[in-house]
Amino acid sequence: MRTGIATVCLSGTLKEKMQACAIAGFDGIEIFEQDLVTSPLSPEDVRKMAADLGLGLDLYQPFRDFDSVSEGLLQENLRRADAKFKLMSRLGMDTILVCTNVGTATIDDDDLRAEQLSRLAELAGDHGVKVAYEALAWGKYVNDYEHAHRLVAAVDHPNLGTCLDSFHILSRDWDTAPIEAIKPEKIFFVQVADAPKLSMDVLSWSRHYRVFPGEGQFELAKFMGHVARAGYSGPVSLEVFNDVFRQSDVERTAVDAMRSLIWLEEQSAKWLDANASATPGGVAGATPAKAAGRRRYPMELATLPKVAEPAGFNFAEVKTDGPAQLETLLGQLGFTFDGRHRTKDVQLWSMGHARVIINEQAPSHSQPAIAALGFDVDSPVIASARAQQLKAPVVPRKVQADEEVFQGIAAPDSTEIFLCQGNPDGTAAWTREFGEGLERPSGGTRAVIDHVNLAQPWQHFDEAVLFYTSALALEPQPFAEVPSPSGLVRSQVMQTSDRAVRLVLNLAPLLQQGDRKSYQEHIAFAVDDLVATARAARERGLEFLRIPANYYEDLDARFALDPAFLATLKELNLLYDRDANGEFLHFYTATVGSVFFEMVERRGNYDGYGAPNAPVRHAVQYDSLHSRN
Amino acid sequence: MRTGIATVCLSGTLKEKMQACAIAGFDGIEIFEQDLVTSPLSPEDVRKMAADLGLGLDLYQPFRDFDSVSEGLLQENLRRADAKFKLMSRLGMDTILVCTNVGTATIDDDDLRAEQLSRLAELAGDHGVKVAYEALAWGKYVNDYEHAHRLVAAVDHPNLGTCLDSFHILSRDWDTAPIEAIKPEKIFFVQVADAPKLSMDVLSWSRHYRVFPGEGQFELAKFMGHVARAGYSGPVSLEVFNDVFRQSDVERTAVDAMRSLIWLEEQSAKWLDANASATPGGVAGATPAKAAGRRRYPMELATLPKVAEPAGFNFAEVKTDGPAQLETLLGQLGFTFDGRHRTKDVQLWSMGHARVIINEQAPSHSQPAIAALGFDVDSPVIASARAQQLKAPVVPRKVQADEEVFQGIAAPDSTEIFLCQGNPDGTAAWTREFGEGLERPSGGTRAVIDHVNLAQPWQHFDEAVLFYTSALALEPQPFAEVPSPSGLVRSQVMQTSDRAVRLVLNLAPLLQQGDRKSYQEHIAFAVDDLVATARAARERGLEFLRIPANYYEDLDARFALDPAFLATLKELNLLYDRDANGEFLHFYTATVGSVFFEMVERRGNYDGYGAPNAPVRHAVQYDSLHSRN
Repeated sequence: MRTGIATVCLSGTLKEKMQACAIAGFDGIEIFEQDLVTSPLSPEDVRKMAADLGLGLDLYQPFRDFDSVSEGLLQENLRRADAKFKLMSRLGMDTILVCTNVGTATIDDDDLRAEQLSRLAELAGDHGVKVAYEALAWGKYVNDYEHAHRLVAAVDHPNLGTCLDSFHILSRDWDTAPIEAIKPEKIFFVQVADAPKLSMDVLSWSRHYRVFPGEGQFELAKFMGHVARAGYSGPVSLEVFNDVFRQSDVERTAVDAMRSLIWLEEQSAKWLDANASATPGGVAGATPAKAAGRRRYPMELATLPKVAEPAGFNFAEVKTDGPAQLETLLGQLGFTFDGRHRTKDVQLWSMGHARVIINEQAPSHSQPAIAALGFDVDSPVIASARAQQLKAPVVPRKVQADEEVFQGIAAPDSTEIFLCQGNPDGTAAWTREFGEGLERPSGGTRAVIDHVNLAQPWQHFDEAVLFYTSALALEPQPFAEVPSPSGLVRSQVMQTSDRAVRLVLNLAPLLQQGDRKSYQEHIAFAVDDLVATARAARERGLEFLRIPANYYEDLDARFALDPAFLATLKELNLLYDRDANGEFLHFYTATVGSVFFEMVERRGNYDGYGAPNAPVRHAVQYDSLHSRN
Repeated sequence: MRTGIATVCLSGTLKEKMQACAIAGFDGIEIFEQDLVTSPLSPEDVRKMAADLGLGLDLYQPFRDFDSVSEGLLQENLRRADAKFKLMSRLGMDTILVCTNVGTATIDDDDLRAEQLSRLAELAGDHGVKVAYEALAWGKYVNDYEHAHRLVAAVDHPNLGTCLDSFHILSRDWDTAPIEAIKPEKIFFVQVADAPKLSMDVLSWSRHYRVFPGEGQFELAKFMGHVARAGYSGPVSLEVFNDVFRQSDVERTAVDAMRSLIWLEEQSAKWLDANASATPGGVAGATPAKAAGRRRYPMELATLPKVAEPAGFNFAEVKTDGPAQLETLLGQLGFTFDGRHRTKDVQLWSMGHARVIINEQAPSHSQPAIAALGFDVDSPVIASARAQQLKAPVVPRKVQADEEVFQGIAAPDSTEIFLCQGNPDGTAAWTREFGEGLERPSGGTRAVIDHVNLAQPWQHFDEAVLFYTSALALEPQPFAEVPSPSGLVRSQVMQTSDRAVRLVLNLAPLLQQGDRKSYQEHIAFAVDDLVATARAARERGLEFLRIPANYYEDLDARFALDPAFLATLKELNLLYDRDANGEFLHFYTATVGSVFFEMVERRGNYDGYGAPNAPVRHAVQYDSLHSRN
């Protein structure tokens, strides 16, 4: 698949954008006109730079408001087009995007439009330019790709073809199956963008909220499957207007963008495999590509090393050079100190299958912070190969000759993700490096890591969703919003289908993001009997997060709980939730550095995180943070 | 007018919110349930604190999902209500907000609803509680205030009344005139919120984008006029869910909120005056309030000192302790150095009616930054009194006995706003303090301050709009968005009807906001002949912002300009725009500190700011900033 990206997706100058695209490995770019107009580079400079960087200049865009106009205005538009065609020749570009008229269209007549497009195609032909005509979702008269293509087909000129843009098609819920009915030589260009499903006017949605494939909710693999079945083999290029990407680091965004196309390529191939025998919906009769006797998918779709979703958390690692408070906390929760690593300044603590590493190899005065997570995968090498092909940065970890080699990659928030050999019995061979017999789960309380809650920098939130989706096969859930005294916290759950791994990506309110203290993260452990665990922890002197009495009154008003049970909850500072699937009991510890712990008990098939209780947790944490100061 | 605010509008703990409301001068508050549930304060503590702070506890809210349910669920809901009524008695509160059912309603039957509400009113009566029933805009069966009120009227119970919320009414475009048909004793509560007109689902709009009155586009004065004419005299209380207000400084937001109500009070009185003789639309027959023989407006609406819109800019002030570059720049532009202030370390420069003050009373190593603006007003004292009643912070300025006393207030971005005595001939008496005869405009080039462009901190943008609207009578225009290499820049013009004052509030992309260097502001001067001004400035060695050649090619493609004119534009680095009203020529200087200057010429009735050229300006500034580093 030939990969491309429009310069409008990225921040910086045209030069910076082109360099970042080359570094990220794109085959070509679309030049967004404004990026050229505002650049000190001459068209000839741009042409040379692209050649030097190995970047194709695949599309000049956009040319707006051409058709459906009076003859006088058409003459002006042809003059304007002529100037752009000449410019393209200096750039060495051969394809221009012309979108359907939004601003100046006054005449709704397909015959007139076809005639006007025909004159444009004729002029383009004189300059050796191909016009890719695209239906904008909010085009005044033409807003549907099939309508746009009917015009292209009616004109039937070699210099006029169709541009398919997934946003304009999927935002309007147009059926994508009829794409297969378009002759491949008439599809001049394909643009892809994903988007969250928002209920707002399509223009604002398009201009601010597009995201890279895998970061939204559009069925892009299906869209691409139809495009491939149509026989298209040209560039697949990202055109993503996004307020965040436009301002964030250009090289990093370009890599995120490239990752999204690599992932989309794999997903498209999968969709084609899964739908190989299906008759495409919406198109009567045989598959047009087949009927035409063409090769089925001239677009080459590269594959990636395959991974299944992780089987569970292997460990969680907290980094600090002052571990005393952390050690106390883990001990009070019921964790056992298993030992120190034989060569590194690292401690291992465990409780049942839950393992916590305290890594003391930290700069001095480092407050405890979650630094790494280990995931159980079938094959760490295959998983690592996949992640690296998806351009995840590799984390180097020093190992001795006889120690286990950890395959590590860096998540967008800098958390180190280790891909570990998971055993069905939950053991981990590497624990031997901390002492004999540690690969077996420790006795006592049965426990597992239930979920880990990571705070995300706002400018890398979408990137993080794609990272965990593509590299770790986690599935994003609909996001929630939780009020806190510092503002709304966005919470995005990423999980496996069996819930063995639950990762919660939190987006703190903007004003809090610079403040490490209020940017708290946590690790939650699940046990079988939370009340017993809490009592034992209290015996050991654990400082619980103190839940206000008002909470228990409200709980009673909502659930009419058994008075003895309610008294127990209140006595132990436990929180409670209930829904149609089951019950949820949980408590929180005080915060050390930027880390705290949660213990949970899931009863029945309760699948949530006690969301109604999250505001209480935030309020109490805020209060204790502010009263401490 | 009794003023109120819901605690959900503000950041912080319940205690912090209550204190901020008292400081801002609210009469009462609504307690948002979650704020109490998450608080360590007992209901008795809250009651005592409110009494100590002089705050009424006017509304407990919200009680959700009560009506339109099966008998079994109703029993549960009555039990839940009973618990809340008991809680209210401990709080000493007598009114609760019950909103129409969104989540659990299954039976759409007004008779059943009336019966269920009647049982709720009966129970409320037993506890001395009044139930204010409110139609949510997205209520499942009841989403219209008239429908909600028909139910209230049908139940006809002294403990059941209506709550009117401007957002739920105006977001759905419900007619507000029929409010007058509601008996005043049946309006238990009135909530007000403004909002920008957005085309999105009403729930998201409501939960994230509400703003304080005067910061959005709703016709709130009219809404309040109808409420007053209905004879309502109870609390008028803000309920504003806003992602920014929820996280910004609580005391500051509370003052912004209070300002909005003071302003709304005045606007409502104005609306009533303007519509005194009008027969209210939508209500058949005579004005109900009149017909019922009641006093017309039992709600007392306080007035403010009146101001007209400012007649022009009196001066602009740039502060720095290193003025050399600035002096050079002003000299090159054609400004005359008029002298130093006789007692202060301040310089005056002028060009026609445009005056620039360089204030050297700055901390050492202060890069030049726009520090103050002077506006010509009819009466500085009246304008200052108005601003202070609107809770604008006063700026103290030291003056000698015989010097002009400047009335100064601080804008939300800390720019000092001085209210100056404007003379019809554009002179200013205070200039005498810089030397003889300076009150007359200097000879040579005719010039005025055309507009000033101020960068706003994102968390105070809405506050700034209300500040300039209410204190200075500027009119907000629809905002624009301009692409820059660092992201989208939001641009909000505030202006007078005659355009004598044009202020542009800019919102830089978030990642740039911390970076003073890229946070540029500017002062634009209008002249009669820009080409001549530019030539003269070039003679004097002015460094123009260099406009790329590509820009002029695109200009030609768009406008087919006369080649000689185009050559002149290109030679002098001038930018150009044209629309149906006229033409616009302008150029920019290099940036000094965080300030640059613009010179403009408006031809015909051109009323804009050359928005199509803004991306070029941003790109070149970005480039020069980055290449300098």
